[in-house]
Amino acid sequence: MSEKLSITSPKGFSASYTAAEIKYKNRPDMAMIFSEAPATYAGAFTKNKVKAAPVLWDENLLNQNSKISAVVINAGVANAATGAEGLQDAEETADYTAKKLSVDKTNVLVASTGVIGMRLPLDKLKNGIDAMTKTLSNDVEIGHLASKAIMTTDTVEKEAAASFEIAGKQVTVAGMCKGSGMIHPNMGTMLSFITTDVNIDKALLQKALSEIVDDTYNMISVDGDTSTNDSCIVLANAMAGNDLINKEDENYEKFKKALFEVNSSLSKQIAKDGEGATKLMEVIINGASTKLDAKKIAKSVVTSNLTKAAIYGMDPNWGRIICAIGYAEADFEENKVDISFESEFGKITLCENGRETNFDEEKAKKIMSTDHIKIICDLKCGDYNATAYGCDLTHKYVDINASYRS
Amino acid sequence: MSEKLSITSPKGFSASYTAAEIKYKNRPDMAMIFSEAPATYAGAFTKNKVKAAPVLWDENLLNQNSKISAVVINAGVANAATGAEGLQDAEETADYTAKKLSVDKTNVLVASTGVIGMRLPLDKLKNGIDAMTKTLSNDVEIGHLASKAIMTTDTVEKEAAASFEIAGKQVTVAGMCKGSGMIHPNMGTMLSFITTDVNIDKALLQKALSEIVDDTYNMISVDGDTSTNDSCIVLANAMAGNDLINKEDENYEKFKKALFEVNSSLSKQIAKDGEGATKLMEVIINGASTKLDAKKIAKSVVTSNLTKAAIYGMDPNWGRIICAIGYAEADFEENKVDISFESEFGKITLCENGRETNFDEEKAKKIMSTDHIKIICDLKCGDYNATAYGCDLTHKYVDINASYRS
Repeated sequence: MSEKLSITSPKGFSASYTAAEIKYKNRPDMAMIFSEAPATYAGAFTKNKVKAAPVLWDENLLNQNSKISAVVINAGVANAATGAEGLQDAEETADYTAKKLSVDKTNVLVASTGVIGMRLPLDKLKNGIDAMTKTLSNDVEIGHLASKAIMTTDTVEKEAAASFEIAGKQVTVAGMCKGSGMIHPNMGTMLSFITTDVNIDKALLQKALSEIVDDTYNMISVDGDTSTNDSCIVLANAMAGNDLINKEDENYEKFKKALFEVNSSLSKQIAKDGEGATKLMEVIINGASTKLDAKKIAKSVVTSNLTKAAIYGMDPNWGRIICAIGYAEADFEENKVDISFESEFGKITLCENGRETNFDEEKAKKIMSTDHIKIICDLKCGDYNATAYGCDLTHKYVDINASYRS
Repeated sequence: MSEKLSITSPKGFSASYTAAEIKYKNRPDMAMIFSEAPATYAGAFTKNKVKAAPVLWDENLLNQNSKISAVVINAGVANAATGAEGLQDAEETADYTAKKLSVDKTNVLVASTGVIGMRLPLDKLKNGIDAMTKTLSNDVEIGHLASKAIMTTDTVEKEAAASFEIAGKQVTVAGMCKGSGMIHPNMGTMLSFITTDVNIDKALLQKALSEIVDDTYNMISVDGDTSTNDSCIVLANAMAGNDLINKEDENYEKFKKALFEVNSSLSKQIAKDGEGATKLMEVIINGASTKLDAKKIAKSVVTSNLTKAAIYGMDPNWGRIICAIGYAEADFEENKVDISFESEFGKITLCENGRETNFDEEKAKKIMSTDHIKIICDLKCGDYNATAYGCDLTHKYVDINASYRS
């Protein structure tokens, strides 16, 4: 992203953050996003049948066509598997925030990430809300710090932004997200927040988001575990002053392109920051006979523990890749498959027409000694392509997840 | 198993093994099973679309209703993703063995396990076959050593046996198998060989095997990766002298029970010896509304990297379990789910009706400090149950798989 943009960059958006000690000590763990003009809202949420309370609250507001003024986010406790009480906690968080901001609770979204099964400490949360409603700012740096406050096992904050013009009016799309483990999104990612000052019809905003989510967040995997809290929320407050986008015209396409850029960047940042990861793994499937087959195969390879461990160990073990292609439950012909690795150190073909090439082992290891490796599989069965993003499986992933809750 | 039985225990079966240096040095890496009377044969093989050459050879003989005299097994090279040449290698292995044993090549099964994509070194293989055809023995210890010769990353050999009587005739079922990584069988396991002297109709033998495989090998997972070589082969040579079992009568049920016992024991031994594993994880799903839902949920939990890492770390993180139940794409109600852990150190309920109980953390950790933990989930939605077996995700799994091929 441009160094100078954050979620406060679109006109009318401000943010704040605080350390509420919900679970972590000595670090910010709450953030707030506020829009001066109530924003049109689109969202995509987890398909996990165990949905966190904030997901239920936000989905309900989406169905009610609520306009959104604020989003309250906390890290440390996911407020998932907390039953009716958890849902009351979510509602009370929205209500408390709404009163402080003189809006209605149906104008406030909530989002949580952290341990599943624990109740939110509401007193601490309310103290945090008090602090945050008093410190809202449109300073770009505050938006940046908000993106750090929502981290859990993330090692870096994740932001992206894009700008374009409609008839002389500057429109900005900015986003922040978090996510590092329990990443295998199915409609949405861990937590992703997009602000934009575009003026757009709600149905079109939702359509653009839903299509983009399928090609971005839904194509990344860290560990195959689909979270209870995955949410991607877009707020559009119309303050750019462009004429309302209410059909799929050139302006819609411009906006959709910017929205895609932001979400594509954010989802790659999540994959690269996968728990314990040392390498971003980009799996490119070319020549599939259908789009669905291309996606299934890309996700099968990117999720394979054996492939992920081999990438970590810089072992050019293409046999594990063709094995994962094989169990993807998609169509292809084994005897046509080509498999190559590519990085800034060059490109090498390991397998041609389903058979090992006489490749140079040292060259392959050199190409793998990167922090971004492309695994390119050409099925030569058709014209459909898909790309999935993931990361390697490392000792540190086990370190992190053998003791996360405690 | 009884200490005194091995695959050579059923009447008429002998075995041998040798060190052919196919890939490993200084250890046995080939085994042979021979039946004095050509045996009726049933088999179950991987559903991976990339099927290893030996799987294609053996499936073809199954379809031709071949009687089987011998099985030749090698470790180190999987002969998978080796194209038409690989299939020729498999056929030549069978043919060479057949000539040495004065049978036809269609009476010889082959099985391979190891690195995918490499060709078999046929000269070494033939030297091994020469040695093995000369040393066939029905000594129980030789059968035991054969089960060691087929190991790859396995740390222990895996054997099981059961006996019963039909009208005064003693019938024995014995098995050996290998498998530690790339274990997520879909019809069959890595390599499993069952010998029995029962006299049974081929169609009934296959029916019993297919039903049993669904509840045994197909319910274990080490890493979610379905292998290219999964095979379960049963040879029945009729030498027990019982009257032919040709209908689903009491004798069929006795045999099926013995066959189930052997395969159930073998599949648990594979899960327990999962690459790097320190604990066998038994996931018991009770009260599902359909059998399929029970199985889907059991497999979802047993395959969850986050659950597996928590079990390794002895972290009673039941939230990850309900999360994996949630993404299993099966029916249940979150607010009815109970989750308990049980081991030789006692039992503790962590979650009741979808909510955390006020459980004793120290007691939970004590119960988890075992090498066999039961995760019991009661969905209270119906009468169907399923059990899946897996293991924890450890640093050693990453060690093993970051460098297996090299």
